[in-house]
Amino acid sequence: MTTGFFPIQRISYEGEGSCNPLAFRHYNPDEIILGKRMEEHLRFSCAYWHSFAWPGGDPFGGQTFDRPWFPDRMSDEMAAAKLKADVAFEMFTALGVPYFCFHDADIRPEGSNFSENTRNLEEMIDVIEEKMSETGVKLLWGTANLFSHRRYMAGASTNPDPDVFAFSAATIKSCMDATHRLKGENYVLWGGREGYETLLNTDLAREDQQMGRMLNLVVDYKHKIGFKGTILVEPKPQEPTKHQYDFDVATVYGFLKRHGLEKEVKVNIEQGHAILAGHTFEHELAMATALGILGSVDMNRNDYQSGWDTDQFPNNTPEVALAYYYILKAGGFTTGGTNFDAKLRRQSLDPVDLLAGHIGGMDICARGLKAAAALIEDGGLQKAIDERYQGWSSKTGQELLSDDIDLARIADKVIAENINPEPVSGRQEFLENYLNRFV
Amino acid sequence: MTTGFFPIQRISYEGEGSCNPLAFRHYNPDEIILGKRMEEHLRFSCAYWHSFAWPGGDPFGGQTFDRPWFPDRMSDEMAAAKLKADVAFEMFTALGVPYFCFHDADIRPEGSNFSENTRNLEEMIDVIEEKMSETGVKLLWGTANLFSHRRYMAGASTNPDPDVFAFSAATIKSCMDATHRLKGENYVLWGGREGYETLLNTDLAREDQQMGRMLNLVVDYKHKIGFKGTILVEPKPQEPTKHQYDFDVATVYGFLKRHGLEKEVKVNIEQGHAILAGHTFEHELAMATALGILGSVDMNRNDYQSGWDTDQFPNNTPEVALAYYYILKAGGFTTGGTNFDAKLRRQSLDPVDLLAGHIGGMDICARGLKAAAALIEDGGLQKAIDERYQGWSSKTGQELLSDDIDLARIADKVIAENINPEPVSGRQEFLENYLNRFV
Amino acid sequence: MTTGFFPIQRISYEGEGSCNPLAFRHYNPDEIILGKRMEEHLRFSCAYWHSFAWPGGDPFGGQTFDRPWFPDRMSDEMAAAKLKADVAFEMFTALGVPYFCFHDADIRPEGSNFSENTRNLEEMIDVIEEKMSETGVKLLWGTANLFSHRRYMAGASTNPDPDVFAFSAATIKSCMDATHRLKGENYVLWGGREGYETLLNTDLAREDQQMGRMLNLVVDYKHKIGFKGTILVEPKPQEPTKHQYDFDVATVYGFLKRHGLEKEVKVNIEQGHAILAGHTFEHELAMATALGILGSVDMNRNDYQSGWDTDQFPNNTPEVALAYYYILKAGGFTTGGTNFDAKLRRQSLDPVDLLAGHIGGMDICARGLKAAAALIEDGGLQKAIDERYQGWSSKTGQELLSDDIDLARIADKVIAENINPEPVSGRQEFLENYLNRFV
Amino acid sequence: MTTGFFPIQRISYEGEGSCNPLAFRHYNPDEIILGKRMEEHLRFSCAYWHSFAWPGGDPFGGQTFDRPWFPDRMSDEMAAAKLKADVAFEMFTALGVPYFCFHDADIRPEGSNFSENTRNLEEMIDVIEEKMSETGVKLLWGTANLFSHRRYMAGASTNPDPDVFAFSAATIKSCMDATHRLKGENYVLWGGREGYETLLNTDLAREDQQMGRMLNLVVDYKHKIGFKGTILVEPKPQEPTKHQYDFDVATVYGFLKRHGLEKEVKVNIEQGHAILAGHTFEHELAMATALGILGSVDMNRNDYQSGWDTDQFPNNTPEVALAYYYILKAGGFTTGGTNFDAKLRRQSLDPVDLLAGHIGGMDICARGLKAAAALIEDGGLQKAIDERYQGWSSKTGQELLSDDIDLARIADKVIAENINPEPVSGRQEFLENYLNRFV
Repeated sequence: MTTGFFPIQRISYEGEGSCNPLAFRHYNPDEIILGKRMEEHLRFSCAYWHSFAWPGGDPFGGQTFDRPWFPDRMSDEMAAAKLKADVAFEMFTALGVPYFCFHDADIRPEGSNFSENTRNLEEMIDVIEEKMSETGVKLLWGTANLFSHRRYMAGASTNPDPDVFAFSAATIKSCMDATHRLKGENYVLWGGREGYETLLNTDLAREDQQMGRMLNLVVDYKHKIGFKGTILVEPKPQEPTKHQYDFDVATVYGFLKRHGLEKEVKVNIEQGHAILAGHTFEHELAMATALGILGSVDMNRNDYQSGWDTDQFPNNTPEVALAYYYILKAGGFTTGGTNFDAKLRRQSLDPVDLLAGHIGGMDICARGLKAAAALIEDGGLQKAIDERYQGWSSKTGQELLSDDIDLARIADKVIAENINPEPVSGRQEFLENYLNRFV
Repeated sequence: MTTGFFPIQRISYEGEGSCNPLAFRHYNPDEIILGKRMEEHLRFSCAYWHSFAWPGGDPFGGQTFDRPWFPDRMSDEMAAAKLKADVAFEMFTALGVPYFCFHDADIRPEGSNFSENTRNLEEMIDVIEEKMSETGVKLLWGTANLFSHRRYMAGASTNPDPDVFAFSAATIKSCMDATHRLKGENYVLWGGREGYETLLNTDLAREDQQMGRMLNLVVDYKHKIGFKGTILVEPKPQEPTKHQYDFDVATVYGFLKRHGLEKEVKVNIEQGHAILAGHTFEHELAMATALGILGSVDMNRNDYQSGWDTDQFPNNTPEVALAYYYILKAGGFTTGGTNFDAKLRRQSLDPVDLLAGHIGGMDICARGLKAAAALIEDGGLQKAIDERYQGWSSKTGQELLSDDIDLARIADKVIAENINPEPVSGRQEFLENYLNRFV
Repeated sequence: MTTGFFPIQRISYEGEGSCNPLAFRHYNPDEIILGKRMEEHLRFSCAYWHSFAWPGGDPFGGQTFDRPWFPDRMSDEMAAAKLKADVAFEMFTALGVPYFCFHDADIRPEGSNFSENTRNLEEMIDVIEEKMSETGVKLLWGTANLFSHRRYMAGASTNPDPDVFAFSAATIKSCMDATHRLKGENYVLWGGREGYETLLNTDLAREDQQMGRMLNLVVDYKHKIGFKGTILVEPKPQEPTKHQYDFDVATVYGFLKRHGLEKEVKVNIEQGHAILAGHTFEHELAMATALGILGSVDMNRNDYQSGWDTDQFPNNTPEVALAYYYILKAGGFTTGGTNFDAKLRRQSLDPVDLLAGHIGGMDICARGLKAAAALIEDGGLQKAIDERYQGWSSKTGQELLSDDIDLARIADKVIAENINPEPVSGRQEFLENYLNRFV
Repeated sequence: MTTGFFPIQRISYEGEGSCNPLAFRHYNPDEIILGKRMEEHLRFSCAYWHSFAWPGGDPFGGQTFDRPWFPDRMSDEMAAAKLKADVAFEMFTALGVPYFCFHDADIRPEGSNFSENTRNLEEMIDVIEEKMSETGVKLLWGTANLFSHRRYMAGASTNPDPDVFAFSAATIKSCMDATHRLKGENYVLWGGREGYETLLNTDLAREDQQMGRMLNLVVDYKHKIGFKGTILVEPKPQEPTKHQYDFDVATVYGFLKRHGLEKEVKVNIEQGHAILAGHTFEHELAMATALGILGSVDMNRNDYQSGWDTDQFPNNTPEVALAYYYILKAGGFTTGGTNFDAKLRRQSLDPVDLLAGHIGGMDICARGLKAAAALIEDGGLQKAIDERYQGWSSKTGQELLSDDIDLARIADKVIAENINPEPVSGRQEFLENYLNRFV
């Protein structure tokens, strides 16, 4: 028996010819791509927060969504939380996603102190655990919401008040316990308030020390409880804060290295956050790969013309294809996956809009994956790169990279051999055209 | 005897009451600020490139400036280089700046190969050395232009062609030699082409390795020749390339740490580059201080509404004051200084415009320094920060930062003591008003 | 007897030497500037919304402010509205601002339909009218909130549903009546939802027609009821919508001209909105002056590094001075004024922060006004412009602007006289330095 | 006999299965789309400037391209201009584009005064006319380069010096004559210097008057000589100037309306310029359609992460499809066309890169056109819009738009009928998914 929230219980794959807006045209979980099922490549996950907890507000307007479990419709908070969970798992099942993600605050009522929060969380984890068991839906990652409540307004681990650090640490512990119990494959930290509004009241060095301390506590606790998942940090440059410390992948790498954590922690990269930082999504993916810290992705896009986080479902195949190309080049996901940290537009009021948003996103990802796989199989991009850098395999190239040379000897060599290089075409347009054969 | 290029030989300090556009109203080199002469605080430097080599072009138009040493006016390149040097030192002297900076390509004619470049450079270094001796003007830093010539179009150290790496390394060597001989106080590397136009033809990991190799060669050579100055990397996020590897201070830190150079290399921060990376100038200064790599500054602003590097003279006192506040808080400059890497607007055709641009910039910096010093002396900002974080000096605070605690014990403590922190006002408006008392 | 919300009842002018954070250092209402009292130049106004109705939320966090009249503290909505009004007028009085502004939704409880809204509004207008009479505070402008309620999510006048147009029109009527009764000096329309989220579901031409129709209805009603104030449209490019039709001053001008309203309606320009549109504040002011539609200003700034509307109190004197320079050049305000449409940072929790924000803003404006007046009196900027364009007063200049010439005759003249103009320095740096003598 | 510049004389359509990088996979000129040949829909044009005159420089580096007609290779300027023309028409022919576009400065040597420019132009027009006749390639539009030469540094029509206005007017006349003689189908004005660097030296109202005067002269001259083509203004918000007066479509509309030219002049819209103004390409197209001024397009993209005009070949099918959807909805091109105002990346050194850039762009446009046509034929987007606004066809809707209603009567009606609209889903995700069925 279902809640009746959605008009359809299962979305099917009908193929490209289908005009059914509530069917997949590209996402065919069992299709074999590069020797692996599509579902295992993509490892889709839905976010509890945006789909079930967000009321549809924006900075200039309030709630637009009318959900039966919202406070204006249901006063028993725990009953509301359970109804929300029922509907959430109905959606996960209808879409056939293998995973979901949550913040503690998404699934449990807010208590008046930490103990009450923990009790509420534990009660809801029982509910969630049972639903996971019934449906087979798994947990991609859990996380603690350390940004919505006013106690975090000046930071969680980076708060000037050590009591907030303590409250945050305790909350993370409870969320790591829950994630561990639910066999989550990752644990995520997004530092939404770890940054500053104004430098005038901020001690950067001190806050860095606090944030490094917290992440070390998290890693220690992971090992202590035997959690085998990956710890992921999610970069974002700003919003809600003026500056967020985990600005982008390169910045997070520097932070990890500084605190001795570059082998312990990876990144969860979001397209929208990449754009806010002035990067493409593929840049952040390729950079994380080069730095050895690629973990998972939030596959939601930002509007290029809006200077804030619009968290929209992806809809541009060529862009998504490029993202999966870099993910496949990095070996594909291990514990990570494709999470839709995406929200409906606030005018998309109907339950069926929730399905439509995810169906569209999943289909775009499936198209992107197929294109990326074809690119890999064809091998043209890699070949172009191999040829472009082939000089570095030469004796001169190897010598320059070796330890037993110095600037003076190189200068002597340049003079002696009159090294006077002529530039070679970068062939960007050829490569862009080549790429377009596949997308 | 002068070249007669400028209508005035010496700019004097006349004080705030002066209406003379060719006098300083605030920059009074001998005025004592926080126990030190203003000149020694600010350590002004002029950039050879923008003022004497740039023809006034932009992407949609060509040369506007009509300088006697430009190729359309003078065909003997070495004579032109010498005339340019005469005028340059006349400007340095007129302004009374203690320092200047140069790229090799600014001061010497372009040769047809490395040997010729080196001969031309050496000939001009003789000229420059004599002028420095005559005028007392010193060298803040030297650097190699590894971005204008077409051989660098795909990178210098990060070029796919090892011959370009070799040519770059040799060129850096010659510039380090020149800088060392001229007693330069720093050596700068701006990686204008160290980045990419398209990821499609780029191997990030390989280019990172090349760039790290080059910087290690530079540091080794510094020690080999006994150069005592500081090696500085100048962050910039993009332009001319789509992506530049030295994106911002935090990214450079990560790079240095990865290649074991964080104790050897510091950063030269430019306001305009900070803005292009989505930061304030003071953010980059404070971040570099927190990371221990603050070296020097390029004191030129970008237009906030233009998405490229406008390299304008600074003109906003409150912003400049905040910059010097963070510089003074970091202990002030050691080998670094205040370099105007600024260019005239291309419509500012007259020699006297060159003086005006620098006079205005120097006066703004002097006002900013005085305001910053007053802020330091009053101590209100530091006091506000000390009070805001004072909880961390408490027993609880110290305990949280110590090694012998873990998440579980913190959670127990939060429950046992019912830690339930109330937020405290961040007082941003108070602090902004306070700041405005000084600027 | 006061509510006791604020710790101080009256902010005094103490002069530049004062260190009292709750005193004016520059705003001296009776000081004569260019022959007029400072208060009459600046015509300060406080916004009811940001200061008293906004709970301190942002897209990632909820209420931070704890005001006695908020729903979590007081369940009787009308009593809460009255307490809010008491506190609001206490602040207006404490600050000594001559004006305030409001949306209907700021001052009255939300009803369940239009009739109830109107009754609530009328009841509160009685309250407000009495407070205005007691305190002498006047109404700069009233406006209707046609963006927060979910009924407006797809637009007010531009809604695809004509019932929403009707509801909006009725609401505007009630707000114009209220504004007229309270002797408001302007009536403002900000089209926060007049735009689109996606072109895919939008008919631009039709929505333009609807919006033009509504503005014509407003202008007709103004004349019908004998309202003598100015109708003002407030440009903003986006946020909350992806695209807002009143993008910037030039766009609004085109809209007014298209609908025959360019003599009836002016603009209310906000610095933050100017920046979001890629303009400086002074650009929008000068453009509105050139187009004859400058009305009033919202004097709140945006952070240059944040891509959304931060609505902060102004704090940069040079920028504010330039704004007042263009306002004074346009003849100063007539019905318009300086409204602080500014909100506290959400961490600024204390009542006294509200005072501090406004005090700082008012002081910055006073400094700006004094600097602008000095610029006007000195006349240097105008003189530079007059000289730069003086050629247009020549016979040739006049001829080119006359009707009896054509391209062919101009070409003949260019050939006959070999007209071959040499460029002249634009003197930007000189003018920037000149400006800095005054700020 | 050819110049031998290109390795191939004719690019053929080989269909989607082709892996030949020098063949079309989608552009099949004779394919019938919506009852018209693809070639007649797309009306492709190549730009002379970027492809043949631009040396490959950027703000930080000089010439990278090595073309036989460049000054460093050939000293006889007129012979170089002729060789350049030979190669240009070889490319037009190889690609099979029906049109080209040029600035005067692209095709003729720069003279020392207007007379010499005109003589050079006329000599080259003879050459071009013959080549057009030989090859059948037609002229989409001509234009005058009023931005590169230093005389225009402070504007052409908006220059403070009336002599520059005269020189510009004469130059436009000569270019209109040439365009008329070559049977150009449009004449374009891009006001690259019609704007300002600093408001401090600028009189906006005066410059507006000058610019309006010039455009009226152009329109008068068009009628005088019987030119039947369309006069087009090309919007751009900034770069090279800080502010460009023809900011975007809406701004140009206001300007045209102010000067009584909205029936005489249309717009040439460029994707890259749309993005710089904070708009999508389709926004500008739809807006121009709604305002009745859509003329032609420059089909080159900007990089979303770069704040300047990157003028790249289009490569994203979904975006291009949306553009053609709005063009087809507007009735398709009449005199306008699809011009590639695109330049190679400066590292794309080889002649064959020029072909590759255009082939890729043409193929993307062909794919976009086919998708757009399928969208039109399916009709789903239009149907969704018709349904969404259908309420406006009701009696209430019609009444609200009629002249005999006012705010008071609407308010009475809202009360009487208790109009209390419920919002309806905007279905954005459904429409985005629908769109993705076609791209």
